[in-house]
Amino acid sequence: MASDDLGSPDIPAFASVKPGEVFTVQCVDWTGAQIGNNDNSDDIKNVDLTKIHNLSGPVAIEGAEPGDCLVVDILDVRPFDKMPWGYTGIFELENGGGLFAREFNSRAAKAIWDFHGVYASSRHIPGVRFAGVSHPGLIGTAPSAELLATWNTREGALIDAHGPSVPPVAFPPEPTGAYVGQDVSDEIREKVAREGARTVPPREHGGNCDIKNLSKGSRCYFPVYIKGANLSVGDLHFSQGDAGIITFSCSIIKGGVEKFSMKQPMFLPSPVDPLYSAKLVFEGISVDVHGDGKQYNMDATVAFKQATLNAITYLMKLGYTREQAYLLLSAAPVESHVGAIVDSPNACVTMALPLGIFDFDILPREEGLTTRNFGQCAIRSDGVV
Amino acid sequence: MASDDLGSPDIPAFASVKPGEVFTVQCVDWTGAQIGNNDNSDDIKNVDLTKIHNLSGPVAIEGAEPGDCLVVDILDVRPFDKMPWGYTGIFELENGGGLFAREFNSRAAKAIWDFHGVYASSRHIPGVRFAGVSHPGLIGTAPSAELLATWNTREGALIDAHGPSVPPVAFPPEPTGAYVGQDVSDEIREKVAREGARTVPPREHGGNCDIKNLSKGSRCYFPVYIKGANLSVGDLHFSQGDAGIITFSCSIIKGGVEKFSMKQPMFLPSPVDPLYSAKLVFEGISVDVHGDGKQYNMDATVAFKQATLNAITYLMKLGYTREQAYLLLSAAPVESHVGAIVDSPNACVTMALPLGIFDFDILPREEGLTTRNFGQCAIRSDGVV
Amino acid sequence: MASDDLGSPDIPAFASVKPGEVFTVQCVDWTGAQIGNNDNSDDIKNVDLTKIHNLSGPVAIEGAEPGDCLVVDILDVRPFDKMPWGYTGIFELENGGGLFAREFNSRAAKAIWDFHGVYASSRHIPGVRFAGVSHPGLIGTAPSAELLATWNTREGALIDAHGPSVPPVAFPPEPTGAYVGQDVSDEIREKVAREGARTVPPREHGGNCDIKNLSKGSRCYFPVYIKGANLSVGDLHFSQGDAGIITFSCSIIKGGVEKFSMKQPMFLPSPVDPLYSAKLVFEGISVDVHGDGKQYNMDATVAFKQATLNAITYLMKLGYTREQAYLLLSAAPVESHVGAIVDSPNACVTMALPLGIFDFDILPREEGLTTRNFGQCAIRSDGVV
Amino acid sequence: MASDDLGSPDIPAFASVKPGEVFTVQCVDWTGAQIGNNDNSDDIKNVDLTKIHNLSGPVAIEGAEPGDCLVVDILDVRPFDKMPWGYTGIFELENGGGLFAREFNSRAAKAIWDFHGVYASSRHIPGVRFAGVSHPGLIGTAPSAELLATWNTREGALIDAHGPSVPPVAFPPEPTGAYVGQDVSDEIREKVAREGARTVPPREHGGNCDIKNLSKGSRCYFPVYIKGANLSVGDLHFSQGDAGIITFSCSIIKGGVEKFSMKQPMFLPSPVDPLYSAKLVFEGISVDVHGDGKQYNMDATVAFKQATLNAITYLMKLGYTREQAYLLLSAAPVESHVGAIVDSPNACVTMALPLGIFDFDILPREEGLTTRNFGQCAIRSDGVV
Repeated sequence: MASDDLGSPDIPAFASVKPGEVFTVQCVDWTGAQIGNNDNSDDIKNVDLTKIHNLSGPVAIEGAEPGDCLVVDILDVRPFDKMPWGYTGIFELENGGGLFAREFNSRAAKAIWDFHGVYASSRHIPGVRFAGVSHPGLIGTAPSAELLATWNTREGALIDAHGPSVPPVAFPPEPTGAYVGQDVSDEIREKVAREGARTVPPREHGGNCDIKNLSKGSRCYFPVYIKGANLSVGDLHFSQGDAGIITFSCSIIKGGVEKFSMKQPMFLPSPVDPLYSAKLVFEGISVDVHGDGKQYNMDATVAFKQATLNAITYLMKLGYTREQAYLLLSAAPVESHVGAIVDSPNACVTMALPLGIFDFDILPREEGLTTRNFGQCAIRSDGVV
Repeated sequence: MASDDLGSPDIPAFASVKPGEVFTVQCVDWTGAQIGNNDNSDDIKNVDLTKIHNLSGPVAIEGAEPGDCLVVDILDVRPFDKMPWGYTGIFELENGGGLFAREFNSRAAKAIWDFHGVYASSRHIPGVRFAGVSHPGLIGTAPSAELLATWNTREGALIDAHGPSVPPVAFPPEPTGAYVGQDVSDEIREKVAREGARTVPPREHGGNCDIKNLSKGSRCYFPVYIKGANLSVGDLHFSQGDAGIITFSCSIIKGGVEKFSMKQPMFLPSPVDPLYSAKLVFEGISVDVHGDGKQYNMDATVAFKQATLNAITYLMKLGYTREQAYLLLSAAPVESHVGAIVDSPNACVTMALPLGIFDFDILPREEGLTTRNFGQCAIRSDGVV
Repeated sequence: MASDDLGSPDIPAFASVKPGEVFTVQCVDWTGAQIGNNDNSDDIKNVDLTKIHNLSGPVAIEGAEPGDCLVVDILDVRPFDKMPWGYTGIFELENGGGLFAREFNSRAAKAIWDFHGVYASSRHIPGVRFAGVSHPGLIGTAPSAELLATWNTREGALIDAHGPSVPPVAFPPEPTGAYVGQDVSDEIREKVAREGARTVPPREHGGNCDIKNLSKGSRCYFPVYIKGANLSVGDLHFSQGDAGIITFSCSIIKGGVEKFSMKQPMFLPSPVDPLYSAKLVFEGISVDVHGDGKQYNMDATVAFKQATLNAITYLMKLGYTREQAYLLLSAAPVESHVGAIVDSPNACVTMALPLGIFDFDILPREEGLTTRNFGQCAIRSDGVV
Repeated sequence: MASDDLGSPDIPAFASVKPGEVFTVQCVDWTGAQIGNNDNSDDIKNVDLTKIHNLSGPVAIEGAEPGDCLVVDILDVRPFDKMPWGYTGIFELENGGGLFAREFNSRAAKAIWDFHGVYASSRHIPGVRFAGVSHPGLIGTAPSAELLATWNTREGALIDAHGPSVPPVAFPPEPTGAYVGQDVSDEIREKVAREGARTVPPREHGGNCDIKNLSKGSRCYFPVYIKGANLSVGDLHFSQGDAGIITFSCSIIKGGVEKFSMKQPMFLPSPVDPLYSAKLVFEGISVDVHGDGKQYNMDATVAFKQATLNAITYLMKLGYTREQAYLLLSAAPVESHVGAIVDSPNACVTMALPLGIFDFDILPREEGLTTRNFGQCAIRSDGVV
């Protein structure tokens, strides 16, 4: 059961569960298994992103009605026993992009992570082993027709305002690659393809939040928009792109949207997330010192990118390539906090790197940093980085 | 020793310490004691912000030279024994503003926090007691003349691009209210007043980062721009605006800027920050659902505001006023994480509220939330909120 | 592969692995599957303890020699997919005993725990759900002939000194029930049965430590006594008695016993243990206030029992039976700390109960505790408790 | 206000506070300032222990009556600004003893700890800096006459059973050195000296528990035995023996002893204890391998000593002397857990050493441990260790 099904109320529930029932859902990775466990990044370069996200569901929860709050316990997330690996990818500027697509003029690169129990390590990024924070990148309830219309309207306005851009500012409904993994009528299939929201961004129903704290052991509260709620899930993360099995138990709080004034999901974090208390933290402000020196106005996104760039630069002093550093920060249990968005014109955001994931000392010492040779991650077969 | 001295290389060091020496610095609150321990917010309404920030320093560290890294151990931060209280304020839209100044059309409000050992509680926000994360909101080294010129140029360009706005997008050097708390020549005094950067925003030297993890027990690494480094500090926070005493010990890593590729400060968090493991977390995305429904483009600031608004709305269901909720989130040990800034067009940011700071149960229960009566915080004597 | 094989150097390795190799070991529960998922405790009452502990191994690690340190990474511990449950048992005074066997004149009782992802809950102990700390109760290397002789001598002396007691103070080698799960010569089989140490207690090689922090993600250091080290493992715990699969990776530090002055194992705890920061802690001292009031001399065992009894009494006020409370403390992630063993004549030990495992408020409130009805755990079919 | 006042109901309250009132209590160190900030241990050798413990109090809480539960919030614990140091001492076998007095034939030694904000470091134990867990070693309510009689009876029986021993197994009431720091009648003074319990051990009222988690920010629940409760406190610990100021706020739960079935104190730990997540843990079992090889019967005290000895031996490999290692474990935020007291005949106890308190790497590495030269702690002026 795999379908692009968080974007439409029209996809029928594939299965139905009772409140309190424990059930598991199997998920392919978000690209639909386009990425292989190998040592070049050509599959990343050529990935067909019209197909994303491959999700599993929808699962109807008996008794759920619009206005209710769906309580979802994420009891477990784990890789398939036969596929104990995942990957982190840097996507090409022209095909997928990513946070630094333009600054880095990104070319495809990737790291394969091997899972050994609670740990992940990569032959492409030596010197590091971390306890994964397994979580679904994408989880949520189906939108109502009204909510879907709202999305399409507001995102369409953004696209209109920006005109064509690389990477795009938003993705309108797109029939090419749309996939309803069920036996439905042509009418429904075409309607979903024509109107269904693509699941790239998170929205009011949850969706592609990529919140690492939605990990196994957490309890999530979602607004319900249609009868049955229609829970879907996918894009499991141990590192970044991973197939696997997720275990749920759900319950319903009648009228919860009103009871809790819910506009967006809430959650209780898990008691079993990895705890690395010692960290090296990098600050970032909303000035593009790495490029043209421009001052931005209280822009937390720029500040976040600065903090991340400062961490990347530091990791490069330790011997990692820029690609390895970027991939590492995308997969490891780092934490980014918003320091302050009040002191015009500079927002301040931090990026914390846990010391305990490295098998050597990364602290700033009087004698400086030792630059090691960690090779390079998987790059394109034509050698372009 | 109090002066607006993180904005200029021209203010001479007030004192000098040796590496390894333990020393304390006394700080007034950032407004220079304009806010009183009372039950209305007229002092917030009428605060003279041309005077901020009142800082203590500069302290020269013997042997520090441009290009070095100044290692600062923040050994302790505590209130004056004779002034065991602080405040959190909402500033008027037209005089200080703040994160929601425009959305809320903010009118002055405040909460006085009484400190009892490690805890703060407020007669203006009943039902809450939290362990404070004492830290200096503002700490850093003095800029070089070149760095100062860079700041003035890039911030000037931002002001020019936006034109007049309320609140302002940035603050140029401003002679009115400038204060050099030392006996210096008129020439220097006028130069500082004319050219010195106002310390509202954080910048490459540190400054007004308001990072709560720069707490007692942390170790910070600052770039050095001028001989002696000229460390200054102020704007102590237990809650938000607090006077107090801070204890330091410094050391120098020669050539540290190059050794660590430092563009901005780094730090190691303290092992003694409050630990509240159970939290209720609110999500926010970059869509202004609370207002006009507009879609923003990967804007983490909007997403942060959304998450905060969702928390405020929830707290209002529990019985707090909007002003109490806003003040509480400004003072309590909440945490905001950047979930993801990769899934166009919606950034995702979270706001975590620790359960353990409330003396009642705030969890979303099947029976809904009980709305209590918590009165109101300190507001203007004319009753306007 | 199952055998009572941590007690003898004479049992040949069942399998051999290379340093760095990742391998999994399947374990039956420590009783060899004598306990069933049902609602009475007759199987506990009648358990045949001559057969314990059923272990898996030995696994030889290539290159390990006496005097080396065997580094064992416990990468994962999880139940069999087809057996998602475990149990906690109270054993009869005359058959197994336990901490309070004599004080309680213990009769068989048990609780079945159902595993749902990271959580365990029990139909026999309502109101509780906890994240398990999965770990092997029993893990270690095989003793040398000399070490085995030392054990038999010193434990024999203890038995001689005490004479017969119920439960016994120690267990000498016992041919009845001894089991070597391999095809070995009669000579070896008889020698093992005659001389091999029973694996009830922990010893210098590790063994039955029941240290919950030896959980998935931890790294253990064991002394090596014989060629190949002969690692064995069993008695997996999620709750108390659980079958399951454990994943290892080993390496060798040559001469590690001398390098680290090892007399007993050391370990590095896992970064992924459950974190429940809010706890209610009970104190205990070495005075038997619950019984005859006798003063003991700095006896940490008595103090531990006191702290535990105080917790049991408190749980009974909340509505649990004594048996339920005892079983809960045996399975949940409680923590017992040694406060002090210096202030004659009273040692002080604490027992910490995490608040977050209960789905109701257990804090001592002004209005007292509400006594709920939680029924009873599984007891004997004749109703005797 | 200093007196040996937790041992008797007859010492009148020195002061009285209302429920909810915040008050501070100043404390001398437990020896009454007999130990100096210097570099030999002669003051430890010659300490007059007939005078201990110097406590501050009693403080009556208005409205408290026998059978109530006294709720004590420990809001802060800090050293005097003018005395930013403390000490850890090893006492002579014949004068004070201690955990290893007999095994080590202890001679006086000490380490002076200098406090810099949240940290302690010692010129006598280089290479270490830790965040202190400030707490009162000794705190509790006054006993009733009946409870005092019980203590004297049961401890007298223990003394009778053991006969004279060095160090003594318990301390009966002892007029020599008894001190009532108030103006009371001769009759009361003599009665207290003659009957009052010495405060060496913890007892049902709290007392000398030395539980490090009773730190600033914690909330304690004590049984009340006499009118006013008569709270006393002393023996503050940052390291081990420290003078300082403690801040309290109390409330009363009427009938709490019955409501909570209290036999001994309970407490809620503080949210602000130091968090060092990475630890090296040593195991200990109840066999005296370091001495005569004797097997003990489920003795957690022996197991605790073993774990501690294993840690000491390891620290000695790193270059510390036995005395430095012993003193370090007495002062640093180490943690000892009871693993299991169920597997006859060996109890298993662990001792965890936080990695983050050392300024060098202490992990067991393939190349072995580097032995540094850390000198020696303060020893007797005659050089005897």
